[in-house]
Amino acid sequence: MPAYKYVHDVMLRDCEPSGIVFLPRYFDMVHNVIENWLDEALDWPMSQLQGSDGLSLPFVDIRAEFPAPSRLGDRLTWRLTVRDIGRSSMWLEVVGTTGAETRASINGTLVLTEALALRTRRWPEAMTERLKDYLIPSEGKANKVAE
Amino acid sequence: MPAYKYVHDVMLRDCEPSGIVFLPRYFDMVHNVIENWLDEALDWPMSQLQGSDGLSLPFVDIRAEFPAPSRLGDRLTWRLTVRDIGRSSMWLEVVGTTGAETRASINGTLVLTEALALRTRRWPEAMTERLKDYLIPSEGKANKVAE
Amino acid sequence: MPAYKYVHDVMLRDCEPSGIVFLPRYFDMVHNVIENWLDEALDWPMSQLQGSDGLSLPFVDIRAEFPAPSRLGDRLTWRLTVRDIGRSSMWLEVVGTTGAETRASINGTLVLTEALALRTRRWPEAMTERLKDYLIPSEGKANKVAE
Amino acid sequence: MPAYKYVHDVMLRDCEPSGIVFLPRYFDMVHNVIENWLDEALDWPMSQLQGSDGLSLPFVDIRAEFPAPSRLGDRLTWRLTVRDIGRSSMWLEVVGTTGAETRASINGTLVLTEALALRTRRWPEAMTERLKDYLIPSEGKANKVAE
Repeated sequence: MPAYKYVHDVMLRDCEPSGIVFLPRYFDMVHNVIENWLDEALDWPMSQLQGSDGLSLPFVDIRAEFPAPSRLGDRLTWRLTVRDIGRSSMWLEVVGTTGAETRASINGTLVLTEALALRTRRWPEAMTERLKDYLIPSEGKANKVAE
Repeated sequence: MPAYKYVHDVMLRDCEPSGIVFLPRYFDMVHNVIENWLDEALDWPMSQLQGSDGLSLPFVDIRAEFPAPSRLGDRLTWRLTVRDIGRSSMWLEVVGTTGAETRASINGTLVLTEALALRTRRWPEAMTERLKDYLIPSEGKANKVAE
Repeated sequence: MPAYKYVHDVMLRDCEPSGIVFLPRYFDMVHNVIENWLDEALDWPMSQLQGSDGLSLPFVDIRAEFPAPSRLGDRLTWRLTVRDIGRSSMWLEVVGTTGAETRASINGTLVLTEALALRTRRWPEAMTERLKDYLIPSEGKANKVAE
Repeated sequence: MPAYKYVHDVMLRDCEPSGIVFLPRYFDMVHNVIENWLDEALDWPMSQLQGSDGLSLPFVDIRAEFPAPSRLGDRLTWRLTVRDIGRSSMWLEVVGTTGAETRASINGTLVLTEALALRTRRWPEAMTERLKDYLIPSEGKANKVAE
């Protein structure tokens, strides 16, 4: 199964006074999952990507659904898959569950750019190979990423 | 034009080392815009909504596009409009621009729920009236909110 | 050695555009260390403390030194010790290092209170016993916590 | 009175589930006050300080007291004063009140450094003059900043 898995327990900083996770914190968790995936699975830590490599990897679009709220202490299991790979973009999906319940289902397009100019930049070849390990079969890709 | 306007200057806390706004911070800004709109335009501060009223107003879905990056010191002008109003849900759009350039275009569905149970709750009648001031004309509502 | 240890790699969200950790994020990390210590070492997760137990554990004072900056990708090893235990308060020290270099040295007083009233509350006896495992020898406690 | 004043209403993002402000958020507010002061009072926005000037202004130490908790919707009035000015450092105090009640009293030392090397850097002369407008009389400065 080509999914990268990351476990996060909901902490005080994640929640607001009604006791549920504050929306922006889900995107913070998703970014954390992506950075850990880059480091552990692709051997491309953000400190290298944005440091010696002089690149940046921002989102250009994102869509999310939150079918059920999460609370302090909940254990969220995040699973990351690649939906599509373009010349300099990739379409990622990151889904967070607690037990059988989906709490957040987020997908979006990241583009590789040069850090200063923020011009798109072709994937390094070695990286395209590693990305393919997380690529899911292609049916139903309504959101084909741009070349 | 029925838009609520809120100005935010990009601060250190909003940016990451490549110098651009960190994605989760855009959603933090959007939430800030919504809370200020509830307070200033609808006279329904979050401290009342979640406090004495015992309600909560979470997002159930959200979509966003980021056509161009924002940097430290940029002045973002956010404009909020209501795209549709359901029995207990509303479809909001919040767009952030710097000069003529759109930096973030975000829309999503919020539902009014009881804080503890997180069951949906009908809009108070007075609030539906005030919400309508921010409602834009109805053509092109692909994302009709649920009743 | 009665120290609780927690490792944190510096992520994008921790840093500001000059590339170093943004001050408020150190306090976020420290709170994360404390919550993990409560859960793993004291078997008192925050979801129980603030949930079924109806308590809260806020800081009333804090002091911090930052002898050297931390950067994206740095691995911070945090060590937590208890400097003193009062009737309802405790004086904690949390120090973050990278290799031999101290990056942040933070100590402060937390008080146990009832969540609603925020009145101080005596430590549960079992908890005082567990806390003592992390208590360091008593010389040099300039900052004796209040009873 | 040489104090810079900044008003902040406590928002959802500032609070944790027990309904009070989450400690790290106070430091986030303090940083926001300082950045607004640099921009509005000293005409030295952070985007210039860290951008074209190539400098950085990190804290090297900080002390804080939180005599009473703040809640969602509280209006905090922050007042910033300069306690001392060194060759490349400054000792700031930032106090947040709601009505007659002090909620947070924070003071600490910032040093001006070159962004890359993070070596201390002498204050620009014009800035020292402007800083003096916020300098309070000198009695009782226990924490004389380093030259």
